[in-house]
Formats: sequence, C-alpha cells, structure tokens
Amino acid sequence: MIVPGVRLAAGAAGIRYQGRDDLVVMALDPGTRCAAVFTRNAFCAAPVQVARDHLAGIAPRYLLINAGNANAGTGPRGLRDARSCCEALATLGDCQANAVLPFSTGVIGEHLPVERLIAALPEVMARLREDAWPAAARAIMTTDQVAKLVSRRFQLNGREATVTGMAKGAGMICPNMATMLAFIATDAAVSSTLLQSCLQDAVARSFNAITVDGDTSTNDACVLMATGACGNPELDHPDTAEAQAFRAALESVCGELATAIIRDAEGATKLVTVEVDAAASLAEARLVAYTIAHSPLVKTALFASDPNWGRILAAVGRAGLDDLDIERVRIYLENVLIVDAGARAPDYTEAAGAAVMAKPEILIRVVLGRGACAARILTCDLSSDYVRINAEYRT
Amino acid sequence: MIVPGVRLAAGAAGIRYQGRDDLVVMALDPGTRCAAVFTRNAFCAAPVQVARDHLAGIAPRYLLINAGNANAGTGPRGLRDARSCCEALATLGDCQANAVLPFSTGVIGEHLPVERLIAALPEVMARLREDAWPAAARAIMTTDQVAKLVSRRFQLNGREATVTGMAKGAGMICPNMATMLAFIATDAAVSSTLLQSCLQDAVARSFNAITVDGDTSTNDACVLMATGACGNPELDHPDTAEAQAFRAALESVCGELATAIIRDAEGATKLVTVEVDAAASLAEARLVAYTIAHSPLVKTALFASDPNWGRILAAVGRAGLDDLDIERVRIYLENVLIVDAGARAPDYTEAAGAAVMAKPEILIRVVLGRGACAARILTCDLSSDYVRINAEYRT
Repeated sequence: MIVPGVRLAAGAAGIRYQGRDDLVVMALDPGTRCAAVFTRNAFCAAPVQVARDHLAGIAPRYLLINAGNANAGTGPRGLRDARSCCEALATLGDCQANAVLPFSTGVIGEHLPVERLIAALPEVMARLREDAWPAAARAIMTTDQVAKLVSRRFQLNGREATVTGMAKGAGMICPNMATMLAFIATDAAVSSTLLQSCLQDAVARSFNAITVDGDTSTNDACVLMATGACGNPELDHPDTAEAQAFRAALESVCGELATAIIRDAEGATKLVTVEVDAAASLAEARLVAYTIAHSPLVKTALFASDPNWGRILAAVGRAGLDDLDIERVRIYLENVLIVDAGARAPDYTEAAGAAVMAKPEILIRVVLGRGACAARILTCDLSSDYVRINAEYRT
Repeated sequence: MIVPGVRLAAGAAGIRYQGRDDLVVMALDPGTRCAAVFTRNAFCAAPVQVARDHLAGIAPRYLLINAGNANAGTGPRGLRDARSCCEALATLGDCQANAVLPFSTGVIGEHLPVERLIAALPEVMARLREDAWPAAARAIMTTDQVAKLVSRRFQLNGREATVTGMAKGAGMICPNMATMLAFIATDAAVSSTLLQSCLQDAVARSFNAITVDGDTSTNDACVLMATGACGNPELDHPDTAEAQAFRAALESVCGELATAIIRDAEGATKLVTVEVDAAASLAEARLVAYTIAHSPLVKTALFASDPNWGRILAAVGRAGLDDLDIERVRIYLENVLIVDAGARAPDYTEAAGAAVMAKPEILIRVVLGRGACAARILTCDLSSDYVRINAEYRT
C-alpha cells in the first residue's frame, strides 16, 4: 500500500460536507516524476487548466485535492481561486506555487470557499504520512458509496516495488478521457516519457473503457507519480522485462479501480461487460459497444433482469454502421446465443436468457462478422435509484 | 378530420392486449399516391422490409397495422408472416398482395400470431368508414397514454382540402429517421415526386427532431397518402402557392403529432425544447442539441426542476466540437442568461433559474458563437417512472 516517497493527509475544510474529510494533500519527494491525463470536456474546470499549466513548468511537489466543489464554470475568478490555494500550500510547503497541482470534484458552477480551504491546510500539512492512503481515498468521495484504493507489488531488478492508486467517481462517468479523479503512485524510477505512455495505455484500457451515463465530467484527471525511491535503474525503454512488469502492475491497478467505479455507479445493481468482436475497426467496435451501454432501454432491461434481447438488437441496428449485414450478426448473453442471422436463435429459450440476466455480473457479447477488431467496455444498469440520486444531488 | 378517399376500421385481434382494439385497416381509393419513410435501424422489422418492397411495386390499396407485436428480430419466418397477413387482406379486399402495406409495433423478437390476426380481418373489413380515425389512433397505441390525431384544413384552388394524421410512440424514440408509426392522409391531388419531397422535409422538422431516450426503433415508419378526392389539379411544382399551402398544412400536422409524442413520452413530466444557435454547421448544432437532450444528468435535473446549469455546460463541453471557444458560449434558460464566457453570468440568480425550471415547458438555448446555423429539437425529462415503465414493459 505504502509508496516510499509519497506522503498523504486528509482533513476537513467544510467545503460542502460537514463532519467528514473533504481535503487531501499528497506530498512528493524531490525527483518524483509525474504523468497526467485530463478531461477532454471543452468546459474543463479551473483546477484542470491550472494543473496542466503547472505540469508544463516544473516537477510537482504537492497535489491538493478537494471534494464537494468542482470549481468548474467559474470563469477567471475560478482560475484565481485555484491559484490562491496553490500559493497557500506552496508557502506552507516551501516550494514554488507551480509545484502544486490542484484538483477539485463536486458541484459545478459555485465558487470555491478559498478561505475555508486555506484555513484547513496547516493542520493537514502537519499530519502527512506514508500510510494515509485509506483516509485520502475516503476524503475525495462525493456520491461514491465506497472508497476505491488498489495496490500491487511487482519485482524490479530484484527489488520489490509498489503501485498504489486511489480513485473517486460514481456518476457523470463516460469514456474517452481520464474519466474521474485518480491518483496513482509508484516507487519505481521511470522516465517521464515512459511514464506518460504507460499511463495513456493503461487509461485507454481501464478508465476510458467504462461508462455510467455517457456524461463526461469537467474535472476528470488521472495522475501517475513515480518517486524512484525503490532505487532501481530508471525504466526508460518500453520493451524491457522491468518496464513490462511495471506496466502490468499499473494496468492491474487501473483496471481494478475502473471496475470499482462501475461497481459503485450511482444506483447500479449490475456490473455489465459489453464485448463487441469481429468488427471491421476498433472505432466501430467501440461505437457499437457504447451504443448498447448507453441505451436507456437496454439499461432498464438489465435493471429488471429481463432478457429483453430485442433492445440489444435494436441498439446494434441503430449504431450507424454502414452496410451492416444482419445475417452475420450474433448476440450472446454470456455463452447463451440469443440472436443469430438477424433473428432469435433456434435453440434460444427464455429460461436460458433469464438465468443469465438474474446474475449480478453479466456479459453481453456481439459478434459483428465484419473483421478482426474487438472492444470491451464496462457499464451498469439504469435503476430508479440513479434517477433519485441525480434528481436530488447537485453534480 | 375525414379525408375523402380514405376509410378505416379498428378491431381486436388479441395480439397481445385483451379487451382493446389492436388492429387497424386503412383502405385507399384507387389512384391514391403514397410516400413513405422508414427506420434507418439496420435490424429493421419484417413489415418494414415487406412494406418497402410492396411500395416499389404497385400503388397501395390497403394499410394493415397491428400493435402489441413488432414482428422484428424474427428472421425469414417474420417475413413470411408479414406476407401471409398481406395476402389474407388482399383476398378480402380483392387486390394484389403487394397492394397491401404491413406495419407492426410492440414487442421485438416474438412471432406474430398470424392466425388470430387473420381471423379478425373479415369483421374489420366489414366496418371500414371515413370517420374511424379516432378509433384507429387508439388501436395503434402501445405504451402511449393518449391517442395522437391531428387534422388541418387548407385552401386549394378555391376548394377546401384536408390533411389528417395519426401517430403512436412514447418510448424507443430517437431522431434521424421516421421515428415511430405515423399515417397521414390528404384528399389533395399531389404528384408522387412532390409527395415524397414534402414528406421528407416535414419529417426532418418534426419526427426527426424529437428524442425521448436516444433509442431508435426497428419499426419506425411514416406514410403520407394523397387520395386526390379533392379534385384539384394535381400539385407537382413545389413553388406554387397551392403546393406551399399543402406543405404548410402537412408540416403543421407533423409538428403537432411530433410534439404530442414528446408530451406523451414515457414517464415524462416536462416538454423541453433544446435550441442551439450560432453554430458553424447544422451538423454541429444538432450534435450539441442531442448531447444535451440525451444527457441523463441534464434529464434528471429537469425532472427535479433543479436549475443545475453545470450539467448543461458539461454536456456542451463534451459534445466533441473542435476548438470550441468557451469564452463565446452563452447558455440561456428561456430568457435567463445563465452562462456567459464560460462561467456563471454575473446577473444570474438561482431564483431566476428555479422559476424557469419549475415550468412544465422549458426552453434551453445555447449560443455557440461560431456561425449562423441553428437546430431545434424537442425532448423530455428522465423520471423514475421512465425506469419503472421500461423495467416492466417489453418493447
């Protein structure tokens, strides 16, 4: 769990929530390298813009994360607020202001309570410890029901190294960017170039392959930090056995955190994998997978445990593939063939479909019969609780 | 309401529902011209395929419509079933089988109960009348709460002519095709070419500009019939005053039917217009409008009457426009400016936003500041009743 070179602390700034921590500081030893990916939402939040600027400058020494207020849609004042928080932390931490990366999650469109946040910093800074990951993972939660914290150990030139990551996110979750807040650290020494490419690959297969509701947040960010405290010769070339070991551990951490987000998705009762095989391109495989995963009718059928495969078939049909030959399409629920040659499979029985749909974890598999590309994404059902949560909560 | 040259009757075939009509026959006088648009879903239903084939052959004399079973995802047997029904009706009506157009709506993936349907035909055929539009509009309903029937009169060379249309649809509704079943008739004489172009234009502005849930049905069809019983010189050139009068009446009927579908959308409590102005192209205006209209977070905020404009801003930002300059974007709720230059407008108050959101009909207007194109679509909120209805009902 512990990543030598990274210390954390959580505290309560009363930003939106009362009686719980809502502020996290992560302190990075000198020499730590950082890679990051951010939301592609054009209305990216003030802290995203500031973090991007600061990353382009010098090596980060601190991450400052708050829950309860996204500082998004807040214009020039939002940028000033984010910078003020960085400056206050830099004074306490004795570093330059652009060595602090700010992250916010919570309600969009309200100004950050900068004074309360800054007032809470001294106490938090006094409590930085290497073993505070669990408290930090709890402090960054918003509508999350559970904290998301994953750790893996791996061998590196005969030494034991660690990758530990935490994430938050349960709604406004959609792929094609870093989809929520995630902070991952390793004590391995990794070059900046390799670190960024490993992060992008891992994110593409994990956080960018999940969707709750198709809504991409304004604040998504995923940061990967490598302290080098492990003492290994710096990893640089991607094809070495050591780089592969690091990559495997990183992808395992990202994959489990992404799965944890979907398990914790707002109102969700099912974990659903949508796999599209035999597509002509990765793009069309993803298009079909997301059309199914975003269909409110498919999602409500999943909630009802109803093997209503007609809705899956309709979603495949409307995905917009040119010249889709439905005679070649097969649709499975787990291993049960439900649609063959554009119609109900001869051997399919409602009982067999119902048995699969009753499970808490379900695989929907579509074979397009057009090529050799495949995509696999994770999603969840659409329940009445999703509506209740989002009719009550301000994102 | 009556369209001379068109007779209708509804009957009960017990296809899925008990104790209500679920079957409609429309009889067209010889010489009636038909135009039609169909779903673009690749898994289009058997009746859609058969109707398309038949239309390409001879002029239709009968339309045969059933509710409760979509005859979609039913493979070669589905095609045989649809043709058998056409043949049975053709025998009773003394015409060729391909002069009958079949239409089905209801559950996907179950075989049509052909014998029950055919058994009900003689009695229905015996009751064909010009004034049975209301009974027919009720008989084609599935999850619809209200029948949708609209009529307009207009002047044509000193004569009075009529356009009457009925539609069904409340869920699995999404644009870019004829989005549900709609049957529209006029007694005006209109050439086939003009009829088809008028229909396509009217559909683009009405049925193809609404969305409930982004799910495109396998069975959507919209048919426009012109009997010529009015006795006017046949309309052919689109620029004449008479053609304009017909077009205006047709667009009025289609617009009101499309609005009626959204008012009746499954679980909906609000009628929402999303207007995107100052876009660089029609395509990007529609993209932004549909991204807002399909956002579960925007839709649940509408359900809660919560002026949670951050979700609208996030949807605009994730729509995928290249180089969107958020400094130029303005977002309004009705006439209340909520977002200006990428942030909350200085004069915006929560009270002003809440007052708009409390209304049953709401306009969301986004000004992109990129060009002169605009799009306007109709949608609804996402309520817990939508989930309940679709977790219980088999589309």
